[in-house]
Amino acid sequence: MKLSCKVSMIQMRVRKTKEDSLLTAGEKIKTAAKDGADFVILPEMFTCPYETENFPIYAEDENGESVRRLSSAAAENHVYLVGGSLPERDDTGKVYNTSFVFDREGRVIAKHRKAHLFDIDIKGGQFFKESDTLTPGDKATVFSTEFGMIGLCICYDIRFPELFRRMVEDGANMVFCPAAFNRTTGPRHWELLFRSRAVDNQIFVAGVSPAADESASYIAYGHSILVSPWGEILYEAEEDETVLTKTIDLTEVERAREQLPLLKHRRKEIY
Amino acid sequence: MKLSCKVSMIQMRVRKTKEDSLLTAGEKIKTAAKDGADFVILPEMFTCPYETENFPIYAEDENGESVRRLSSAAAENHVYLVGGSLPERDDTGKVYNTSFVFDREGRVIAKHRKAHLFDIDIKGGQFFKESDTLTPGDKATVFSTEFGMIGLCICYDIRFPELFRRMVEDGANMVFCPAAFNRTTGPRHWELLFRSRAVDNQIFVAGVSPAADESASYIAYGHSILVSPWGEILYEAEEDETVLTKTIDLTEVERAREQLPLLKHRRKEIY
Repeated sequence: MKLSCKVSMIQMRVRKTKEDSLLTAGEKIKTAAKDGADFVILPEMFTCPYETENFPIYAEDENGESVRRLSSAAAENHVYLVGGSLPERDDTGKVYNTSFVFDREGRVIAKHRKAHLFDIDIKGGQFFKESDTLTPGDKATVFSTEFGMIGLCICYDIRFPELFRRMVEDGANMVFCPAAFNRTTGPRHWELLFRSRAVDNQIFVAGVSPAADESASYIAYGHSILVSPWGEILYEAEEDETVLTKTIDLTEVERAREQLPLLKHRRKEIY
Repeated sequence: MKLSCKVSMIQMRVRKTKEDSLLTAGEKIKTAAKDGADFVILPEMFTCPYETENFPIYAEDENGESVRRLSSAAAENHVYLVGGSLPERDDTGKVYNTSFVFDREGRVIAKHRKAHLFDIDIKGGQFFKESDTLTPGDKATVFSTEFGMIGLCICYDIRFPELFRRMVEDGANMVFCPAAFNRTTGPRHWELLFRSRAVDNQIFVAGVSPAADESASYIAYGHSILVSPWGEILYEAEEDETVLTKTIDLTEVERAREQLPLLKHRRKEIY
């Protein structure tokens, strides 16, 4: 297992058309690859303005144009590509919020369907009901690389500590989470959730958000974030577009677990 | 169920003798009762300097002098008293880190034995090995009051999200946690852990620490804290001695759960 890797987080605005978003993502993936990225992570719903009625309109099947374009980008740039998320339609017509992961040859090696749908109604704050048009996935997702096992989840999934334990039990030492928080939940809980999942599980966690877009009906929080197993924020963006490539020392996972053996200290018979 | 209660957190230094600590606690409980407290919470190991070799020396059985004194204090002041924690010896000679809870008549209504022992070895930071002299408890603890069910755990227990889910499944809408973090783990994780347990479970969480004592071999972090179901810090102390009484509006639990139904959104079949 290689013990050092470069993670690149692409915080980008969703463009007016799907084509424009894909072109922009392609350019930014190139930039990340030039920076030496091993992993490039795009944001949640980076081609689709975040509105429930858009998900069925923008949905494609798993062999659709968007997936093909991402596959090519991964292969051309020889990077692992976590394709943010896309609305995916299955052959029964159901639509999912899905993250596809491609290896350096462009093969799909993992696919996570958002397992917890975001249905929220905060007085004076955010209202959103994904379940109006989306179907939830039904499994936790990890995938294998030369840097070890990596977990994958999407946005609201991060609010569920059980899902992180599941991914960690399945071997994840790092979790990537394309996510679009907003200006209600972002300032309150974004850092807190990413830091606490990292600290409780002694893993690296990366959250990659769309950039804020004042003209959108749902304004993403931005603040893409990378957190160490000790809960240190290694990087946190502002609201605007940015590509950040950061080297991660994976030995920190083992070091944290040696010094404070949280996972071994669990008392499963009690819970 | 009553929907508003007053919680009093006693952040005190451990005194040179057990008797002195008990007298000091007694005075401070009186102060809290004058403030109208329904619940008074003492810190972890508030009569015993926090060193592994002290636990067997300071240990008493569950009918010992310390428990009798706390029982009287609860009854005299007509408050629920969470007796921080004490080293407790059972009839086989094993020693536990135990929190006794007394009702307004001084009856023991709950008892939590710290279930996760603090064995930590951080390079250049804190070393401590509770398991040298302590035995862990083997259950999660909740107790019933006119303010609903309340969970109880001790210090390192807070690092385990599963334990909080267990208490919440058992009905807790508030968790009290006597705890002595230190100057390594405190600045890094204290606020994070209390806030994240509150937010993930949409409950109130109170952490009550000994005051910092520069002359102690283990210097407690202080910073006793009270957090709302939205993760807002309603109160956080500094390092010094203080008694803080704060009114809690328990309807906030239901309100948070209505607006963002996290517990209902869990996908247990996945984990």
